[in-house]
Amino acid sequence: MNMKHIIKAAAAAVTSVAALGALTVPALAQDGKGVADLSQHGAAQRIATIGSVNAKNVILFIGDGMGDSEITVARDYLHGANGSFDGLDKIGQPGALGDAAAGTGQYTTFSLGYSSDNGKYPKAGGVNNNPGVITPVTDSSASGSSWATGTKTYNNAVDVDIYGNPQLNLFELAKAKGMTTGNVTTSEIQDATPAVLESHSTERSCYGPQGKTDGSSNNAAKQCRAEQLKENGGIGSISEQLLDTRADVTIGGGAKYFRQTAQAGEYQGKTLWDQAKARGFQTVENNVDEFSKLQYQENKPVLALLGDGNLPTEFNATPALDQAATIKRGALQCSVNEAWLGNKTAAGNSASLADMTNKALDVLQANPKTNENGFFLQVEGASIDKQDHAANACGQIGETDDLDKAISAALNHVDLSNTLIIVTADHAHTSQIVNEPPAYALSTILKSPVDGAEIVVSYGTATAVDPDATDASKGYNDGGMEHTGTQLRIAASGPGAQRVIGLTDQTDNFYTIGKALGLATETGDQKNLSADAKVNVVARDGKYYADLTGFNGDAVVSYELRDGATNQVIAASNNSTPVSGVRIAPGQTTEIPLDLVEGKNYRLTVTGRQSGAVAAPAFTAPAASAADKGNGNNNGNNNGGVIAQGQAKLDKGDSANGLLGNTGSAIIGAVLFILAVGAAALAVKFAKARR
Amino acid sequence: MNMKHIIKAAAAAVTSVAALGALTVPALAQDGKGVADLSQHGAAQRIATIGSVNAKNVILFIGDGMGDSEITVARDYLHGANGSFDGLDKIGQPGALGDAAAGTGQYTTFSLGYSSDNGKYPKAGGVNNNPGVITPVTDSSASGSSWATGTKTYNNAVDVDIYGNPQLNLFELAKAKGMTTGNVTTSEIQDATPAVLESHSTERSCYGPQGKTDGSSNNAAKQCRAEQLKENGGIGSISEQLLDTRADVTIGGGAKYFRQTAQAGEYQGKTLWDQAKARGFQTVENNVDEFSKLQYQENKPVLALLGDGNLPTEFNATPALDQAATIKRGALQCSVNEAWLGNKTAAGNSASLADMTNKALDVLQANPKTNENGFFLQVEGASIDKQDHAANACGQIGETDDLDKAISAALNHVDLSNTLIIVTADHAHTSQIVNEPPAYALSTILKSPVDGAEIVVSYGTATAVDPDATDASKGYNDGGMEHTGTQLRIAASGPGAQRVIGLTDQTDNFYTIGKALGLATETGDQKNLSADAKVNVVARDGKYYADLTGFNGDAVVSYELRDGATNQVIAASNNSTPVSGVRIAPGQTTEIPLDLVEGKNYRLTVTGRQSGAVAAPAFTAPAASAADKGNGNNNGNNNGGVIAQGQAKLDKGDSANGLLGNTGSAIIGAVLFILAVGAAALAVKFAKARR
Repeated sequence: MNMKHIIKAAAAAVTSVAALGALTVPALAQDGKGVADLSQHGAAQRIATIGSVNAKNVILFIGDGMGDSEITVARDYLHGANGSFDGLDKIGQPGALGDAAAGTGQYTTFSLGYSSDNGKYPKAGGVNNNPGVITPVTDSSASGSSWATGTKTYNNAVDVDIYGNPQLNLFELAKAKGMTTGNVTTSEIQDATPAVLESHSTERSCYGPQGKTDGSSNNAAKQCRAEQLKENGGIGSISEQLLDTRADVTIGGGAKYFRQTAQAGEYQGKTLWDQAKARGFQTVENNVDEFSKLQYQENKPVLALLGDGNLPTEFNATPALDQAATIKRGALQCSVNEAWLGNKTAAGNSASLADMTNKALDVLQANPKTNENGFFLQVEGASIDKQDHAANACGQIGETDDLDKAISAALNHVDLSNTLIIVTADHAHTSQIVNEPPAYALSTILKSPVDGAEIVVSYGTATAVDPDATDASKGYNDGGMEHTGTQLRIAASGPGAQRVIGLTDQTDNFYTIGKALGLATETGDQKNLSADAKVNVVARDGKYYADLTGFNGDAVVSYELRDGATNQVIAASNNSTPVSGVRIAPGQTTEIPLDLVEGKNYRLTVTGRQSGAVAAPAFTAPAASAADKGNGNNNGNNNGGVIAQGQAKLDKGDSANGLLGNTGSAIIGAVLFILAVGAAALAVKFAKARR
Repeated sequence: MNMKHIIKAAAAAVTSVAALGALTVPALAQDGKGVADLSQHGAAQRIATIGSVNAKNVILFIGDGMGDSEITVARDYLHGANGSFDGLDKIGQPGALGDAAAGTGQYTTFSLGYSSDNGKYPKAGGVNNNPGVITPVTDSSASGSSWATGTKTYNNAVDVDIYGNPQLNLFELAKAKGMTTGNVTTSEIQDATPAVLESHSTERSCYGPQGKTDGSSNNAAKQCRAEQLKENGGIGSISEQLLDTRADVTIGGGAKYFRQTAQAGEYQGKTLWDQAKARGFQTVENNVDEFSKLQYQENKPVLALLGDGNLPTEFNATPALDQAATIKRGALQCSVNEAWLGNKTAAGNSASLADMTNKALDVLQANPKTNENGFFLQVEGASIDKQDHAANACGQIGETDDLDKAISAALNHVDLSNTLIIVTADHAHTSQIVNEPPAYALSTILKSPVDGAEIVVSYGTATAVDPDATDASKGYNDGGMEHTGTQLRIAASGPGAQRVIGLTDQTDNFYTIGKALGLATETGDQKNLSADAKVNVVARDGKYYADLTGFNGDAVVSYELRDGATNQVIAASNNSTPVSGVRIAPGQTTEIPLDLVEGKNYRLTVTGRQSGAVAAPAFTAPAASAADKGNGNNNGNNNGGVIAQGQAKLDKGDSANGLLGNTGSAIIGAVLFILAVGAAALAVKFAKARR
């Protein structure tokens, strides 16, 4: 671009905001709002009055733990103090990307309810897991839940509110609109940041039906709330819900957890890999060359997990040392990790985050649904956080580089006139740039290969060896450094980018994305997504099922089956907690097996637990074999194997009249959840804001 | 404002960028630029291609050390995690201030050349004061010099480049345009951030002609480079230059340094307070009631110093403790310091930073020059930094509150359609928000009185007791915590505010302000400011003088007086270093006493050391008493007491043909400066990035 073009582009970039629309719901931040207020859907928004414009597609880049300090550490080392990231620094920069709208700002990231049980910091009365307070420092799950759902919640929560009620997330809402979806990360795909697009889980550690194992053992009782497990009538672990969610592209680590075996349900006894294949996924397990060959295939979503745990980092570790040892060691430079997937295989393939982003965009863009309805893709550079926890300066720098290059890759793939790109982080972290190794903190001296500056990176929020660092269940080297609670940078380019200017909250990001894509961001609109829900009672292969479609305003449904003659309940879902019941496969058909006796009369009542929509077909069970052939429909609707059809009725009244677990007014669900917390004799592990 | 208005205002706020103009000089950041490049005027700009719009007035609010973490600490405590500052959070927020343009972004703050001599961090070869490297963490003087002059420099430098050459600052450039100026701070007025608008000093500690004392002793040899002292032919200390600069309003602390006595020059033997009075200043020394009565008086600038050192903080100290002691102490709340000047006096007056800002704006706005040409005001909340150094959470929070209220006060005083308000910081700092008191760092638990959250503020960059903490010469309680090098928030509202969006450098702020005000930001334009410079040789009160006017492109001039008959130099300024010579009183008449013999012929050559402008009147000395009456002008110009007039000629050629110390191409000056550094047997103290 010559100078004239740059100037013109710059002017255009800052001009295009003129098209910003406006919304009607004011929910501006107020001083002193407490947990009860802030836990409501959308209640922590700061800029509800600022409008948005339409985008067809959104890419959300998350640098996990990538606070401004982490950005500066990496820029100073990789590009020089006055240098620039090729991708990261272009997003939000007026004029840097032609005439794309651009904006930068800061957002707040606090969460709700202390969730630390490690006893290091006893509070008055010794009560730790205190839902009545605001937590100044978020973890990745509460922060991810914020932008994925628009609802503030507790550290450890994945898309459930502080009472445990599932909150609809951006993938569910995008699927309701017919969009395609992609989820890319360098971490285990079950880790919090990718998990918030796949699942609703009261415990972020509930990775699979056997907990956090490779399937050779089972620690689910430790890692999951019991009621969420399928064998107890729950909606299932994060990995199982990932398969229900069925994103069009899923790429990351955590392959070993898919070697676990389902403990209940249709796929009981099968591994999750087998389940994925049975459900039509294109799967890749730990093979970069196979990954490289993946292409879009109709109704064959991509599930590529390229490492058993988190993916190897780009740079080798440079652990921080105490002052004397750091000075003795002198200035270091970073070296590329041989295990990094960004290195070429013998066949010439690689899987850097940029490669993964390219693959995701190739697959999404080849999908005809994308052409029609657009896509939403999240790309996470996960190990900036993990390497910062480990006090590893080169580690975090390499991961920032990997993310930056993924952004550049995306910029080569999309049209910023219809695609909004957002780059931000979930929380800030420990690392600080100082001029000398401090006396207290651990530190590392780096010498930039670009401008020769010596950069001292200091880590001061933990001791060198933290007991948790040896906790193998975490799957990564957690050096114990802590997240920090400062406001964070958010940057955006493309339609609606200016909505990030000024001070926003992390929950505003849900609205920025959701409104740009025309998704149902408000609770009422979300309930209406189930207005066309239907329940078809069918027979297939000699068995009876309820096929649920259109429950797009719900994450979970409950059902009960009554004997038509006696009105006795003869089968029902478990509704004991908000994460009990039947998980909806968003935008797809959700199947409930029914055990019917030929010739008997039944009433099946299916209730959307978020929307309150109720469908209650009554019917007489025909011979399953007859129904299978399209006969025996006792309601006069002969639609293939359909025995009966129930059209949902939506409760449009006061939410107090709603059913269990209505989004945003979860009184009954809350009581149940709290009872469950009190009653369950489970070793529930609440995470610190550490992951 | 009702909802419709808010929405309309928000839309207007993000729309008004359309008016942004464009500039012609590209100087975008490039990876790997080294010190030689970056030390040039304007060379570290990142957004030179982004245009600006005109503002009549600019207010620059600096929170010293107010990184994003410090902002969040204070917001969390004072307003709640979801709350907002009344002033600080409005600046840059679209829609928050009617239809004012708004923008937020981040900027880089690095400086040039290590300046640590404390031996803690020996570099290869043991060389410390190394001008060849980039310093990732700036101090307040290098950062202040960046936005005051647009030139990157070394930690410890006040408006001189890395070679010691004075760089024209915003006050000098504003005065060249006839604007009024104001300088308000809660620190000693000689401290770096206010000093960058008052002076050019190779040492930030060169407070007065007797160094950093109350005048009862003299440690100038330790605090100042000898050549800068007036007794050695230098341009004088920071306090003396403050009187030369003659801002229309100056309010802060540091009164005791004005009890020092000038060691040379016209006011030799007099205290600086006496000098200030003799030069027409309205002075107030440590008296809030007198301060409150100050009003605009024609050609009587305000100099109100309300404390001997830094002004007392708003909140009492809560020193951070180690982990065990912090847990034992439990959660604290902040209490107001009885000594804070924001408390009412018996007469009902107060001097919070808001009061000081109101006073400055009252005095500036009553000045007819403001009506004609506008004002530039800097307001610093100085002790956010100092309390962060001292690991004092309540201290830094109270100072952030004080700054926030000053911003609110300003918003009540100005019209954002013609006034640009910028809020930013000079560098980030140590304090971090964590969820538990860390094992290594010092910390304090605070309980927000607003939302009840418990906030753990951690300080990890130094030990509890730092040797420097007892250095009385610093005038404040320096607990030893270090600045950090992360990019920082910058926010702006008013004309041209969007120029701060994206990633900029601290030097861009000079251009944002300078261009908005139509000042001479480019080196060539700055030189041209001396195109109309004149030297009048005059006689007054029986003595001869050269009266210099119009040297607006210069901070320093040199002169030599030659015998017209023999061409021998009979008097000359010291030109041994770039801070030797005669300090220009910007926008005013600068007086050089001449020792002439009646009837002899002379040639006086005056050279602007930044512009290269030369005026060289030749004349015969008349009887001083006759000249005094307007006679004896041997050049035919009988203008009052004018004996001879010299009109400057500007060297417009290649800068290599320029004279000593040309801005931006200081080759000769550099050599001299480096020779001086090497030769001077002085205990020059280079500061760490600590103040």
